[in-house]
Amino acid sequence: MKRIAVMTSGGDAPGMNAAVRAVVRKGIFHGLEVYGIKRGYAGLISGEFERMELSSVADIIHRGGTILRTARCPEFKNPKVQQEAAELLKAKGIDGIIVIGGDGSFMGAKALSNLGIPTIGIPGTIDNDIPCTDYCIGFDTAVNTAIDAINKIRDTATSHERTFVVEVMGRDAGDIALAAGLAGGAESILIPEIETNLDVVIHRLLQGQKRGKLHSIIVVAEGVASGFEIGKIIEERTGFDTRVIVLGHIQRGGSPTSFDRILASRLAAKAVDLLMANEGGKMVGIVNNKIVATDIDEALKQKHTLDKEMYELAKVLSI
Amino acid sequence: MKRIAVMTSGGDAPGMNAAVRAVVRKGIFHGLEVYGIKRGYAGLISGEFERMELSSVADIIHRGGTILRTARCPEFKNPKVQQEAAELLKAKGIDGIIVIGGDGSFMGAKALSNLGIPTIGIPGTIDNDIPCTDYCIGFDTAVNTAIDAINKIRDTATSHERTFVVEVMGRDAGDIALAAGLAGGAESILIPEIETNLDVVIHRLLQGQKRGKLHSIIVVAEGVASGFEIGKIIEERTGFDTRVIVLGHIQRGGSPTSFDRILASRLAAKAVDLLMANEGGKMVGIVNNKIVATDIDEALKQKHTLDKEMYELAKVLSI
Amino acid sequence: MKRIAVMTSGGDAPGMNAAVRAVVRKGIFHGLEVYGIKRGYAGLISGEFERMELSSVADIIHRGGTILRTARCPEFKNPKVQQEAAELLKAKGIDGIIVIGGDGSFMGAKALSNLGIPTIGIPGTIDNDIPCTDYCIGFDTAVNTAIDAINKIRDTATSHERTFVVEVMGRDAGDIALAAGLAGGAESILIPEIETNLDVVIHRLLQGQKRGKLHSIIVVAEGVASGFEIGKIIEERTGFDTRVIVLGHIQRGGSPTSFDRILASRLAAKAVDLLMANEGGKMVGIVNNKIVATDIDEALKQKHTLDKEMYELAKVLSI
Amino acid sequence: MKRIAVMTSGGDAPGMNAAVRAVVRKGIFHGLEVYGIKRGYAGLISGEFERMELSSVADIIHRGGTILRTARCPEFKNPKVQQEAAELLKAKGIDGIIVIGGDGSFMGAKALSNLGIPTIGIPGTIDNDIPCTDYCIGFDTAVNTAIDAINKIRDTATSHERTFVVEVMGRDAGDIALAAGLAGGAESILIPEIETNLDVVIHRLLQGQKRGKLHSIIVVAEGVASGFEIGKIIEERTGFDTRVIVLGHIQRGGSPTSFDRILASRLAAKAVDLLMANEGGKMVGIVNNKIVATDIDEALKQKHTLDKEMYELAKVLSI
Repeated sequence: MKRIAVMTSGGDAPGMNAAVRAVVRKGIFHGLEVYGIKRGYAGLISGEFERMELSSVADIIHRGGTILRTARCPEFKNPKVQQEAAELLKAKGIDGIIVIGGDGSFMGAKALSNLGIPTIGIPGTIDNDIPCTDYCIGFDTAVNTAIDAINKIRDTATSHERTFVVEVMGRDAGDIALAAGLAGGAESILIPEIETNLDVVIHRLLQGQKRGKLHSIIVVAEGVASGFEIGKIIEERTGFDTRVIVLGHIQRGGSPTSFDRILASRLAAKAVDLLMANEGGKMVGIVNNKIVATDIDEALKQKHTLDKEMYELAKVLSI
Repeated sequence: MKRIAVMTSGGDAPGMNAAVRAVVRKGIFHGLEVYGIKRGYAGLISGEFERMELSSVADIIHRGGTILRTARCPEFKNPKVQQEAAELLKAKGIDGIIVIGGDGSFMGAKALSNLGIPTIGIPGTIDNDIPCTDYCIGFDTAVNTAIDAINKIRDTATSHERTFVVEVMGRDAGDIALAAGLAGGAESILIPEIETNLDVVIHRLLQGQKRGKLHSIIVVAEGVASGFEIGKIIEERTGFDTRVIVLGHIQRGGSPTSFDRILASRLAAKAVDLLMANEGGKMVGIVNNKIVATDIDEALKQKHTLDKEMYELAKVLSI
Repeated sequence: MKRIAVMTSGGDAPGMNAAVRAVVRKGIFHGLEVYGIKRGYAGLISGEFERMELSSVADIIHRGGTILRTARCPEFKNPKVQQEAAELLKAKGIDGIIVIGGDGSFMGAKALSNLGIPTIGIPGTIDNDIPCTDYCIGFDTAVNTAIDAINKIRDTATSHERTFVVEVMGRDAGDIALAAGLAGGAESILIPEIETNLDVVIHRLLQGQKRGKLHSIIVVAEGVASGFEIGKIIEERTGFDTRVIVLGHIQRGGSPTSFDRILASRLAAKAVDLLMANEGGKMVGIVNNKIVATDIDEALKQKHTLDKEMYELAKVLSI
Repeated sequence: MKRIAVMTSGGDAPGMNAAVRAVVRKGIFHGLEVYGIKRGYAGLISGEFERMELSSVADIIHRGGTILRTARCPEFKNPKVQQEAAELLKAKGIDGIIVIGGDGSFMGAKALSNLGIPTIGIPGTIDNDIPCTDYCIGFDTAVNTAIDAINKIRDTATSHERTFVVEVMGRDAGDIALAAGLAGGAESILIPEIETNLDVVIHRLLQGQKRGKLHSIIVVAEGVASGFEIGKIIEERTGFDTRVIVLGHIQRGGSPTSFDRILASRLAAKAVDLLMANEGGKMVGIVNNKIVATDIDEALKQKHTLDKEMYELAKVLSI
């Protein structure tokens, strides 16, 4: 292993730059040449490679987004395209690749590994919906962004005695909603993993009002329903003045938290170690506070699961 | 003037607490008794008065929202209701009132003054749409909240090479949009005071792309159109991957900036001075960096005007 | 177990309020009466008890500090004082206590347990220096506060091509320094657990300069030396324009991160569960992502240990 | 005027990048060639010029520090050095210069103007100590950084019932201390413009304690005394547990507030207008909310003055 490359793929997540930086620095530390591939698989196909030096990754650890940029690239599912990419990589003398992204990106990584280019996946997505890791890069930052917004909403909710519905990201995974709801002190949390019972939500709102609550905040993952739908039903059935906030893409941005920067650094270091041991077709993750590697094949068969205990805790604490 | 009262009315704005605090402390400093009226005119009608001591306003200068809470109260337009309120105030021995809110709130203030209760209005609204003052309490904080969001969006916009439409508050006034757009480095700013020409917006986007711009941000005031409408048209006509963010109520919350806290303190001090001089029916404001008082009658005849020069500057700087 | 009490003790830490809230709410959920004890052991001795309702802990999850306040109380080491406190608790019918604080606070907890009042300790200290838990409440927030400061320093360091020494908290434990240094991209990290070799630090600075680095940041835990001493030596031996920042008590404040709020909620829930099972003399902690309980006797024999791997990683990444 | 240059000089201030960006963009808008000079007068002497395009200033409006970097350059006081610089500029065909910095930097600007290179000064310094402008670029951001720190300190001060002394920047000018103290709700504010009477400070502390105040915060400008000295005296004379925080260089960093970004943009636009009208030897400023120009000679004769009314207000509000 003399020359490796790193790229970011899929939706961007805060902390991706910290991972890119760690790949480059640890690679150089061990005497490797490191290349950056721009715009994910799209740039890989079109040959957008750039030699990375220590200075290429100076002053990026604290920046959101990804300096390598990212793009969706559906054509990379095509085996012919994969084959061409592998040949291009061989021609450029690139011995291994590290892909930072979501599980879609890992399928491409697996394909490249099968074609003789050892490739390691690093889980980076605010949705936290990748199996075989407790946390993905970007999740902690996204949750903190969400609770900052909930703090602000709380100010105005209290002043006006209003109900607020806050829609957060999460199509299939309720992780952001659950963590932001628990940490934000929400009255109810609606997530795709648990069937929504609006009767219960409304009952809790009415109970709260009886006890003199000045406001209520309901956090809903986008995968459940649009915040506007939920808000409309609540307003109709309770008569409460209800407002809706859709946090949207601000959850993807911002300077990464220390948790995400350190997680990114540790996962990236492990990925470089694996490549140097000539291993490929794996993803790295953090499980029970330890950095581990799992076969991508194995990982893709599994499903990310919700922390049920935390969901129950949130219910207890929001009485 | 022995006993005064303070209330917040209309939409809440960060910095209202700093104004309440300053009214209470300056009042007590001058030997006045100060009462807080809960929930604006609604609480005035229902007699929700509370004696305020120095400790009532401890540790609130940095909090968003308003500890006095606020509510809309359309019935206060009814002269009979106004009359009853004035009598209630006289019965309670309250000699003067300070109302922190928007221009709707000032009409109520004027009515009370006419009924013999000297009343002073302090402009507090993030929309900054009140005449006879350059700045309203809450505006500076709201703009800073908006540019923080734009910073975050910029991260992800750059990473994905996307166009973002950011809808900010402002039904009739483009102040937030203009300031946030100028300070956020937006490519285009759409405000109610200037007729929107989407041809120009789209031309600029296409020009930017030719020059290699990785992303574009368009700020639109809610009074112009919904961000979603604008986003849809842009995507259709440019083919650019376009996302929409509606900032909504997070603009109302958050710890007030130093600008808003100081403005609130200065305006509140002036309001107390006016009451002590037995003046009523006035609003206080900051004009050319000086704290001034204007007859509410006079003020309500005028219209808040846009800073045209700043709009032109924003256009020049976003080439 | 019918009536329990909760208190905060020792140095305050962001997230303590989230723990208090969770104790109160989970206690009430299970039908317990919950009391708050003001100002730690000092308030326990002087009988400062207050019945806590759901509304007592409304709107505190996001606030730094502790609504129960805290104080050092050296006299609680006196067995006679402990005995009196236990009797007072029995007289008040308090069946169990939860103490949120550092290891000093846990000794008091152990003493009370031995005297027949089951007591559970929850680790809350930004220093993260308590054994038998990977994280203490407040640590994550303190590290994020430190890296925010480092971000700001980085701006001015780059502009002026300066070296900055940042002193962070940590008398015996280098956890804040290590995490903030790694996440902040510091050039060198000085911690009490590893003997400081300033020759190496200075060599790295000089190497960095040769490679064209515009600035350097050195993070030092207060337990190693004062930042000013380190800064002076560096300036003398390198001739670099060197500035020193002592972050101090701002590390203790601020709205807790989602990590700290969730950790606090989970630890508090476990503590209530333990009391309900009539267990005492234990501390709760998070070890490898699981909430566990350890005998306080056992815990106090152990020593918090540094994550050596993370230290090595920081060195590799700061080449 | 065909070719102009821009540089930043003296201590850096947040918003300098917004000013650089505005000079470049407005210059290009009007068809000028714009050059950046690196590291202030030091880079001017050594010929560190760089052509600036629109893309050179992309994505900098929100960044602290200055992309042009800055340095102190005492040798530029030497008329011979000034002469050489003017000749270098003429040789490069540079027709006018804009210098962003403090009053020291303006003397150099004046000298260059006298030597036939029209030069305009833009006031950029967090200290806000330049005459003929109400606000300097960076001041608003620095004050907001200071009040964020005071917010955090307030959390821990309340929890521990402590007195905190917060030392902020300001050698000759108390502007940061006054604004941060007023907006931060400090009990006392010590500034160089007003003789410090510690008897009064201590009397207020003792009064506050009698009234049940849980904490006190005293803000002191570095020009008055070190925070440690003040803290020591207070602790000795009151017996209160007193802690000291020196905010230091974090006040210089951070993303500029919207106020600073807009002020920077407006001042820079005016500076370009002046150069295009072939005017030099002037500084631009904001006075009573209007952008104005003043002869540097005239300005340097004047002294920045404190807002006495605001100081009195702070005293009234901190009873």
